[in-house]
Amino acid sequence: MHEDLKKVRHIKTEKMMTCGKLVEQMEKSGVMGAGKVAKATKVIEDMIRDKECTVFLGLAGAMVPGGQKQIIIDMLKDGWVDVLVTTGANLTHDLIEALGYHHYQGTHLISDEELNRKKIDRIYDAFMPDEVYQGLEKFCKKVFAKMPKEEMDIKEFLWLLGKEVPKEDSILRICAEKKIPIFCPALSDSGIGLQVWGYMQENQIKVSAFADLKQIIDITWTSEKNGVIYIGGGVPKNYVQQALQFAPTSASYAVQITTDRPESGGSSGAELREGISWGKLNRKAKYVNVTCDATIALPLISAAVKERLNR
Amino acid sequence: MHEDLKKVRHIKTEKMMTCGKLVEQMEKSGVMGAGKVAKATKVIEDMIRDKECTVFLGLAGAMVPGGQKQIIIDMLKDGWVDVLVTTGANLTHDLIEALGYHHYQGTHLISDEELNRKKIDRIYDAFMPDEVYQGLEKFCKKVFAKMPKEEMDIKEFLWLLGKEVPKEDSILRICAEKKIPIFCPALSDSGIGLQVWGYMQENQIKVSAFADLKQIIDITWTSEKNGVIYIGGGVPKNYVQQALQFAPTSASYAVQITTDRPESGGSSGAELREGISWGKLNRKAKYVNVTCDATIALPLISAAVKERLNR
Amino acid sequence: MHEDLKKVRHIKTEKMMTCGKLVEQMEKSGVMGAGKVAKATKVIEDMIRDKECTVFLGLAGAMVPGGQKQIIIDMLKDGWVDVLVTTGANLTHDLIEALGYHHYQGTHLISDEELNRKKIDRIYDAFMPDEVYQGLEKFCKKVFAKMPKEEMDIKEFLWLLGKEVPKEDSILRICAEKKIPIFCPALSDSGIGLQVWGYMQENQIKVSAFADLKQIIDITWTSEKNGVIYIGGGVPKNYVQQALQFAPTSASYAVQITTDRPESGGSSGAELREGISWGKLNRKAKYVNVTCDATIALPLISAAVKERLNR
Amino acid sequence: MHEDLKKVRHIKTEKMMTCGKLVEQMEKSGVMGAGKVAKATKVIEDMIRDKECTVFLGLAGAMVPGGQKQIIIDMLKDGWVDVLVTTGANLTHDLIEALGYHHYQGTHLISDEELNRKKIDRIYDAFMPDEVYQGLEKFCKKVFAKMPKEEMDIKEFLWLLGKEVPKEDSILRICAEKKIPIFCPALSDSGIGLQVWGYMQENQIKVSAFADLKQIIDITWTSEKNGVIYIGGGVPKNYVQQALQFAPTSASYAVQITTDRPESGGSSGAELREGISWGKLNRKAKYVNVTCDATIALPLISAAVKERLNR
Repeated sequence: MHEDLKKVRHIKTEKMMTCGKLVEQMEKSGVMGAGKVAKATKVIEDMIRDKECTVFLGLAGAMVPGGQKQIIIDMLKDGWVDVLVTTGANLTHDLIEALGYHHYQGTHLISDEELNRKKIDRIYDAFMPDEVYQGLEKFCKKVFAKMPKEEMDIKEFLWLLGKEVPKEDSILRICAEKKIPIFCPALSDSGIGLQVWGYMQENQIKVSAFADLKQIIDITWTSEKNGVIYIGGGVPKNYVQQALQFAPTSASYAVQITTDRPESGGSSGAELREGISWGKLNRKAKYVNVTCDATIALPLISAAVKERLNR
Repeated sequence: MHEDLKKVRHIKTEKMMTCGKLVEQMEKSGVMGAGKVAKATKVIEDMIRDKECTVFLGLAGAMVPGGQKQIIIDMLKDGWVDVLVTTGANLTHDLIEALGYHHYQGTHLISDEELNRKKIDRIYDAFMPDEVYQGLEKFCKKVFAKMPKEEMDIKEFLWLLGKEVPKEDSILRICAEKKIPIFCPALSDSGIGLQVWGYMQENQIKVSAFADLKQIIDITWTSEKNGVIYIGGGVPKNYVQQALQFAPTSASYAVQITTDRPESGGSSGAELREGISWGKLNRKAKYVNVTCDATIALPLISAAVKERLNR
Repeated sequence: MHEDLKKVRHIKTEKMMTCGKLVEQMEKSGVMGAGKVAKATKVIEDMIRDKECTVFLGLAGAMVPGGQKQIIIDMLKDGWVDVLVTTGANLTHDLIEALGYHHYQGTHLISDEELNRKKIDRIYDAFMPDEVYQGLEKFCKKVFAKMPKEEMDIKEFLWLLGKEVPKEDSILRICAEKKIPIFCPALSDSGIGLQVWGYMQENQIKVSAFADLKQIIDITWTSEKNGVIYIGGGVPKNYVQQALQFAPTSASYAVQITTDRPESGGSSGAELREGISWGKLNRKAKYVNVTCDATIALPLISAAVKERLNR
Repeated sequence: MHEDLKKVRHIKTEKMMTCGKLVEQMEKSGVMGAGKVAKATKVIEDMIRDKECTVFLGLAGAMVPGGQKQIIIDMLKDGWVDVLVTTGANLTHDLIEALGYHHYQGTHLISDEELNRKKIDRIYDAFMPDEVYQGLEKFCKKVFAKMPKEEMDIKEFLWLLGKEVPKEDSILRICAEKKIPIFCPALSDSGIGLQVWGYMQENQIKVSAFADLKQIIDITWTSEKNGVIYIGGGVPKNYVQQALQFAPTSASYAVQITTDRPESGGSSGAELREGISWGKLNRKAKYVNVTCDATIALPLISAAVKERLNR
């Protein structure tokens, strides 16, 4: 039986080797985490090269405080991704940086009482000064006042917000500029959501909780093929999965990068193959679950895919 | 230094010992996971006994397919919990069971292709027949038709839904009956959400994405004290945390049960103490992170708290 | 298909319910972690009741500092376990307590620099005064002096040590008294090992690194049936697995409790079913992997098995 | 406070960027997993460059089946590592490959019953034909016959074995050739150990269980400085830690790559800083815990360190 299988070739590292070369070595090893990183690179390359494929990026976790913003922006700018589904937190942290604030390199081994006294909010080992909320409020108030009084869906609301973002290196702004649909079903669960609430106390702004569903379902139902990239789980993953469930074409390509586990049954840690039972993933799909901190795996995969696409 | 500390007393198990007695033994050991389960029992007991405390239950993960529904219902019925924040999935699976369907004891070691052919949806090792969606659609259409045409918030929508639930052992119904606020910011990301979308194709139903924020913030701001129980992370945890962030009284009691990890920086796996920096958790709060599959820890804690409250 | 499957029955907790009753409820739920705890209880009950079965307990992790010593002692005393395979650390901490020292309830959120100054050794949130090493040295010197000069195997060495242990509630002593074989292949990797080394500087003591292999292999090869319980992974698990590999009867019963993961390929986190490929686990074996902190799952299982055996 | 901190700079990936450049970007981000990979690269570079530092490599997990053998060999050949401490499994798989056998790229989603029938042993998703044991036996018998009859320590035994290894790309052989001490306290817990046992049935071979302790302790006690790299935990990590505990100079540099967790108290998952309390790690040490599958993080770090050392 094993005669038909590929041998595990040992990874050979070299000084000055490119990320693409390293992933090529991982592909030759073909097993464990390294093999999965290599497979993820290949599946992402394939879904980008497949002109018929609509690519969904589901984005959860602290990707902006975690230093991954530029990688996401490049994925959007370079046309790798057609639809973004995200937590409100990632958009809020993106907007905060676009307003001129920063996240800082801290430590998780610190007294949170001390941070509280110093008005620093901690996100594991990233620090954020609490003063960002004042800038956020000021900006939002100004922008919200320009918004239409009619009911919007969340995507429209976010595009309107994105158009006003002052800095270029922003997820929100690039989506608004390139008209990339952003879905954020739980936007109310974020700093931006809080600003909407604050504004609603004295002003009118109407955003429908369900209207976006039509849009994302229209996309999955009219695509020739669908491909999904899930960074973390949560609502972003589940929302794309659900839009695929009854679609005529389930996902043909799928990559998931998360450290969440399947055993407790939650959607975040569920293995991609589970989606086959539901009709969310195609029986013949190319897919791989990368069990890794996304801040490690994603940059490596990003660099390797860039190298491959330019060959 | 160690002279002032309690000794680790070894857990002694006995035949016919009650769950409360076992947790008492864990309290005497006082370390590692067992010590945390014991502390969680104590903190939950304390927040229930504290008449001034409003208790929030954040519920993520496959709690209904995972056999935890009755424990949640008891928490709501027995007055342990004042506010429920949940994923749409838990409400959808609750409703599906209330319509007479069931989840089944399966296995994760099975071909998902085979399940797909047999129209069985897999949730790790729980199986659900795909036919539930027909019953769900039929029920929802009937109930949605009775709903008001004016804009609702999600809580109102869920109470209206809950009132129509045919079976008594339902999370939705008990919340509707007891007027326990249910917050579900990402309801559109669920089977119920899909039904709303389907209904909206030909009918009108208006649900605001942000209106609930006012309600939950009103609750946190007017409570004498706040206590939180997070089963899993995701939106339910973050939504409660956010409502506490600027409240005059941050949480005085907090228990978290999850296997998610802090290192990647996401909110789901963040240690509770991180909330102190943000002002979400009180510096003097009683709190504990239980790193455990909730389907194991929650039943034990539930039984032990019931025993303690009846002493 | 699902008509043939058992329904997920929701766990119902009650005040004063016994641990056995709780596990019975978990058995009726039958899925996720709770279902696995219930299955582990059943498999352990079955292997104990099976008179033909030789039961191996593989013990890794901080079970003594973690408050689990009495549970292990009961398993040995009550005849649940026929062979103990353990890390040297568990025996060292057991001996330390038998010499009158204690572990203490500390915290992992403390400055290790401060602990170092105060001569406290930390094991996650358990503390141990560094002075234990003086007592350990004194005791070992005295006992080693009585030992034979001929080459021993590790099991003989540990029995000789165990006979001299002053307190009754000791893993080492109960094994010595009941002539339960203790295998500890990496004994040199422990405080007891360090004492042997110290003693060897000026005295002679001969312990063979390989002689025990004959003994454990003799046991697995002559047993009618084999059953295994792995608490944690490491050398204890692997050593039993290896002794089963070429045995005429691979394991018929197997339970593993660990939070280690399979993806990186190490033996500690490997799923039990992997052992079927190697011939270590029988194709028809009853087995279950419990993914849980052992300090939580083991006490509950221990109490439930005691209750069942007394029905 | 945050004014004194470095900003989180977002990782920028480029086509054809070298691994060293990628890690440089991770260093600028400075947080979460990426920040830790960058710090690990720096700490390893520093310990290699520090001429006074003796570097210990603790190696657990399926590093040879996992395609990491060449990286380990390079670390030994290029003089990065002065002392190797390993599981017996890694040496056994290394020897098996040196005898001309291979590991194969399989899958974990397969029937282990089927593999058993086909005589394939599974190591997560790596396959190994069971026939390797015949070649192993033949080789070992031949080599053991040449060994001295006097008592050896395990290191001497492994060097003698390594000298006879037929292929060059072998961990065992390179250690024998370069006289790099290999410590393998639990060698009896491995395929090589089984061969020794088989041979001992009819022949004499004497290996002391404790004699190596003198050697490793001599090394830690006479080094100017000590540095440690732990890939996985288990006995290799603990054995080095123990040799450092009472040494005049505890570790000045430390890197740990593992997915094991600290909460259950075991040594494998313990955070490095815990070692400060024990006196195993210097209060002023440079150290970092990388929570990642080593087959992903190690190749990236290896390539980046090679690049830095050649600048």
